[in-house]
Amino acid sequence: MLKPLGDRVIIEAQEAKEETVGGIVLANNAKEKPQTGKVVAVGNGRVLDNGQTVTPEVKKGDEVVYDKYSGTSVDYDGQKYLVLKESDILAVVE
Amino acid sequence: MLKPLGDRVIIEAQEAKEETVGGIVLANNAKEKPQTGKVVAVGNGRVLDNGQTVTPEVKKGDEVVYDKYSGTSVDYDGQKYLVLKESDILAVVE
Amino acid sequence: MLKPLGDRVIIEAQEAKEETVGGIVLANNAKEKPQTGKVVAVGNGRVLDNGQTVTPEVKKGDEVVYDKYSGTSVDYDGQKYLVLKESDILAVVE
Amino acid sequence: MLKPLGDRVIIEAQEAKEETVGGIVLANNAKEKPQTGKVVAVGNGRVLDNGQTVTPEVKKGDEVVYDKYSGTSVDYDGQKYLVLKESDILAVVE
Amino acid sequence: MLKPLGDRVIIEAQEAKEETVGGIVLANNAKEKPQTGKVVAVGNGRVLDNGQTVTPEVKKGDEVVYDKYSGTSVDYDGQKYLVLKESDILAVVE
Amino acid sequence: MLKPLGDRVIIEAQEAKEETVGGIVLANNAKEKPQTGKVVAVGNGRVLDNGQTVTPEVKKGDEVVYDKYSGTSVDYDGQKYLVLKESDILAVVE
Amino acid sequence: MLKPLGDRVIIEAQEAKEETVGGIVLANNAKEKPQTGKVVAVGNGRVLDNGQTVTPEVKKGDEVVYDKYSGTSVDYDGQKYLVLKESDILAVVE
Repeated sequence: MLKPLGDRVIIEAQEAKEETVGGIVLANNAKEKPQTGKVVAVGNGRVLDNGQTVTPEVKKGDEVVYDKYSGTSVDYDGQKYLVLKESDILAVVE
Repeated sequence: MLKPLGDRVIIEAQEAKEETVGGIVLANNAKEKPQTGKVVAVGNGRVLDNGQTVTPEVKKGDEVVYDKYSGTSVDYDGQKYLVLKESDILAVVE
Repeated sequence: MLKPLGDRVIIEAQEAKEETVGGIVLANNAKEKPQTGKVVAVGNGRVLDNGQTVTPEVKKGDEVVYDKYSGTSVDYDGQKYLVLKESDILAVVE
Repeated sequence: MLKPLGDRVIIEAQEAKEETVGGIVLANNAKEKPQTGKVVAVGNGRVLDNGQTVTPEVKKGDEVVYDKYSGTSVDYDGQKYLVLKESDILAVVE
Repeated sequence: MLKPLGDRVIIEAQEAKEETVGGIVLANNAKEKPQTGKVVAVGNGRVLDNGQTVTPEVKKGDEVVYDKYSGTSVDYDGQKYLVLKESDILAVVE
Repeated sequence: MLKPLGDRVIIEAQEAKEETVGGIVLANNAKEKPQTGKVVAVGNGRVLDNGQTVTPEVKKGDEVVYDKYSGTSVDYDGQKYLVLKESDILAVVE
Repeated sequence: MLKPLGDRVIIEAQEAKEETVGGIVLANNAKEKPQTGKVVAVGNGRVLDNGQTVTPEVKKGDEVVYDKYSGTSVDYDGQKYLVLKESDILAVVE
């Protein structure tokens, strides 16, 4: 499996559905395209200037909303993942 | 529901009304277009370099003025929201 | 009323007068156009990296000189205001 | 009178003299045009990240050399002033 | 051998394989092209503003995923290496 | 005399000599053109975020090598000087 | 001799050899061209925000790999040197 470094998070991207009622529908005309995905791995976190490490707010299994154009796409064992910084995650679906 | 991360806030946008007397009228010729909305969710806040977390000044239910071009638009359960950083909020209507 | 967030200040803009003797005359050929206004509301201040909040130097009622092109214009109850950062205020008229 | 905010300083600009022997002659072909002026008001100073305020090095009455293109021009009581940051002042004439 | 300075890491690049089932397949249409390699040397780490040195998360022998366009290519003893910053490494293969 | 502010230094520029054996010859084809000069005045130094002032490494009388395109040219009492930041000085000739 | 300031280092550049087996061969098609040289002088180091000075990792006599396009070229006593920041040095040859 892939273990992200620092404040990075690995997301299993979900197909963007155009029209939904009870779920999330992503704005098509937005400048930044948000998209949902499931967190599959989380780094140790960002190191502050005082030496402390900030534990990421998201955890494995979280469904998150992120900006479609953030991060780097990686394929592993036939599955497509996205490696992005936790700061590129907009919100968690609760 | 959506829970924003870090210093992000989720706003339920209000339709901009062109002409009002007792309410807020937004300048149409302004370079940055301010707009009002209601805060529906607030993140835990920004982490300072000393490890402290700064609690956001706004809270759920606040009516806020923000810059129209800030943030990322997200639809959820048929309602349109805006995810933006607390620093993009200009003022709270009291 | 509007309550600005963080290190923001709300100004009631004054009409720029072209020629005055005992008052302030703003340079017409300046690259940045300074303008005067009255402070009507002040935020809590900027949060430093050590967690301290810096109380703004200006207070409600102060007449201030600021750069015309700073900030965001907002109308409220038929009155035009300007929301700007305290660091965009050049000087206080004493 | 005008009281500058933060690390700002107000200068009473002097006419640039083209040729002098015992005084300061400003280079005409310089990319950045230095100019001399007299300090008429000084702000409280810059606030550091540890909350300390750095008292400005210049004081009222100092003759200073600054970059002509820095700052913002303001007229007050028929006199032209320049509001600039202390960091835009190159040197004090002693 | 080469010893990288600071927060730099030296990678022995691997040939990108186009199609794999049990391994890593790199996205061909991605804006940033991730690639895998083996860590052959690690610097002492980044020095924080408090004087502390942050030990790198990766160690010699780790297989890592990094952005193809990061770092500087160096040949040494007939072998091609890549010197990059640890922050340009996306993830470790575990 | 001129007293530079902060981390600034005043240099008495020397004519660049094209060809020398025992002295310094400056590269003519270099992108940044280094040049030598004598330090005639030194500021109090740069103020760190913890409030400490860093005493400049150079002192009056030092012969220094600096980048020709740094700083601001000032004439004073018929002599041409250069006001630059200490960080633009490359080396001291010992 | 030249004494570099701060976190600067002086390098005696070596001619880039196109093809070598037991030594270092520099990639010709790399965007940034690394090159080797010998350290002839080292500054006192970088001053951190807490007032501490970080002693450079390289020392006089070290053979280092650096980016060809970094730094400023200086001739001294008929020898060509390169003044660069320690952070522009990629690795030390051990």
